[in-house]
Amino acid sequence: MSAPSERARLRRNARRAVYEADVIRDILDREMVCHVAYVADGEPRIVPTLYIRQGDRVYLHGNRQSALLRHMEAGGLVTMSVMLVDGVVVARSGFHCSMNYRSVTLYGRGQVVHGEAHRQVLDAFVEALVPGHLAQVRQPTAQELEATTAVALAIDECVAKVRTGGPVDDAGDLQADVWAGVLPLSRQVGEPQPAADLKEGVSLPEYLAAFRYPDAR
Amino acid sequence: MSAPSERARLRRNARRAVYEADVIRDILDREMVCHVAYVADGEPRIVPTLYIRQGDRVYLHGNRQSALLRHMEAGGLVTMSVMLVDGVVVARSGFHCSMNYRSVTLYGRGQVVHGEAHRQVLDAFVEALVPGHLAQVRQPTAQELEATTAVALAIDECVAKVRTGGPVDDAGDLQADVWAGVLPLSRQVGEPQPAADLKEGVSLPEYLAAFRYPDAR
Repeated sequence: MSAPSERARLRRNARRAVYEADVIRDILDREMVCHVAYVADGEPRIVPTLYIRQGDRVYLHGNRQSALLRHMEAGGLVTMSVMLVDGVVVARSGFHCSMNYRSVTLYGRGQVVHGEAHRQVLDAFVEALVPGHLAQVRQPTAQELEATTAVALAIDECVAKVRTGGPVDDAGDLQADVWAGVLPLSRQVGEPQPAADLKEGVSLPEYLAAFRYPDAR
Repeated sequence: MSAPSERARLRRNARRAVYEADVIRDILDREMVCHVAYVADGEPRIVPTLYIRQGDRVYLHGNRQSALLRHMEAGGLVTMSVMLVDGVVVARSGFHCSMNYRSVTLYGRGQVVHGEAHRQVLDAFVEALVPGHLAQVRQPTAQELEATTAVALAIDECVAKVRTGGPVDDAGDLQADVWAGVLPLSRQVGEPQPAADLKEGVSLPEYLAAFRYPDAR
């Protein structure tokens, strides 16, 4: 497949570029934190934030006064990056040491989500963050809904970049007595820490004991 | 402490802003992947890449033809973000569910590193990626040094944003029969995967068996 636009075309390391929608969706489904960049007064801005994917869109949300969300409400262009860090590539030379990763870069202009769709997107954020938790919590209040803006971004002007596999060493280095390979990385869940004011008698439910980061779900 | 510049001042959630140099350094030392944003032809660009910190500077490196590095060589402004994902905050309402994180945002213009300093920075990238490995690998060739640009960014126009601790629920939700607390997250190292063409007789050295991601070093 070819790039959907010139700005989404990978120029360096073009062999690592992937434009297939299923690969892009799979990467997006394995993280929950992205970085979004935009231009304000001619200068770059960058914001780490949560996102979810539904169908052929990703959604961002946050306080309705956030500068990023107001930029998107006004129709401003953004570019978003999601980066899975899969491992450290240990090579026989420093030059070929590297990371294994899967990243997605997306360009677009947001569309604010209103009404019932807005509420559904906010619910979906809760469920994506903590699967199983939505059914346990009360409904959002009118004030909470009002305070939170959600915007949709189409997944069309998009590229994935993937490095996978072992080190690619120079032929002349293959006989060096140096270990080479990959040290895999993933996000691990530690021991759940109950809130100091947890109601007496409430124990950790099964769905929280089973919590995994999206890359391990 | 107050913000070092207007663009580095946190406007939303100002209570989460931290401008202390030691906090900022500590966050920078616990990751190795950052996102860098810049403006090209009036549009935002975003690039995930490795970085290291030394003293009061961070360094980026990469192929000398990379668009980001050429932008920095030309004196262009960048903004860089580092984001540690520390945990999922499980609240008694969807609205108060959140993430614990430590992030740093930095603004600046790069300075290309030349000569012996250039070589030292490239060595430091190897050692930061895989502590102990630099002593095992051959020296970089002139061609490898030539192919790689390194740029320094001063850590002065910088802000950290930190969320820590348990959920902050509404008083009216505290008696709900809903578990609340934090699910801690960190990067875990899996079983080392030797290269398919690993030289016979080379076993995993101690320094690689002990490898931890920077947040756990």
